[in-house]
Amino acid sequence: MAEEAPRALLYLEDLHVGQRFECGRHALDTAQIKKFAREFDPQPFHMDEVAARDTMFGGLAASGWHTVALTMRMIAENIPIAGGLIGGAAEITWPQAARPTDILHVTSEIMEVTPSRSRPERGMALLRTETRNQKGELLQIFTAKCVVPRRPPSA
Amino acid sequence: MAEEAPRALLYLEDLHVGQRFECGRHALDTAQIKKFAREFDPQPFHMDEVAARDTMFGGLAASGWHTVALTMRMIAENIPIAGGLIGGAAEITWPQAARPTDILHVTSEIMEVTPSRSRPERGMALLRTETRNQKGELLQIFTAKCVVPRRPPSA
Repeated sequence: MAEEAPRALLYLEDLHVGQRFECGRHALDTAQIKKFAREFDPQPFHMDEVAARDTMFGGLAASGWHTVALTMRMIAENIPIAGGLIGGAAEITWPQAARPTDILHVTSEIMEVTPSRSRPERGMALLRTETRNQKGELLQIFTAKCVVPRRPPSA
Repeated sequence: MAEEAPRALLYLEDLHVGQRFECGRHALDTAQIKKFAREFDPQPFHMDEVAARDTMFGGLAASGWHTVALTMRMIAENIPIAGGLIGGAAEITWPQAARPTDILHVTSEIMEVTPSRSRPERGMALLRTETRNQKGELLQIFTAKCVVPRRPPSA
């Protein structure tokens, strides 16, 4: 794997456009899909294989919010931004839904790094994250503006 | 409450720009915030009141993904789009984080209604959803493009 997976805390000065992060894999299954859906997205195509057959999905599909929440966990565990991953805004597209047998694979890339004009101690990084399945099919593109601290003199 | 809260299934023909939906309230608490965070966004400011004090949040804060997932449930339960709420893309901003004592209040408004040019049986509705707390403070703005079926001759 040629991608970077640094463990030291990352400050704004440590980020550059094109920098990539490998965020790992997660095996989805029917039980996880239904559990999330019961709590947060109780619709037939996320909860019932039989009812799902007659919907636009043609079978059980994960809620997009489940896919993005799992993606968030993988990002949080693998991109050690100093101060944590704090997003102020996000855009998500779902080219296709995640399915019970999918193994999610998450990779992220820095698209912009912008020091704040008004707050000298911080800046913004635009992070673009792709979630694919084991066949390489693109399930989700997620871009988020994250607040990133600048390196303090002591760090 | 002057807003509409229809229960009959809604087709594209039933939607119009400016149409509003009242999606109800949900009382957040510390246990819910920590439980979601442990599973999907394991960062100190979402899991530990003491550690959260020294972060940008200054205290325990809900993951933005928790706020949006709870919002999704309230939308799914209160806007009866025929065929379900199926989003292809979403944009989210979080002006401020939800806190353990917040009671979330969700309202939605139709911003655009667009018949599909290539698929005569469906169209797209752009739905803008605000999540506020009991003080009326805006926590989240969430806009999503939803696939909506046109009314079939039999319905």
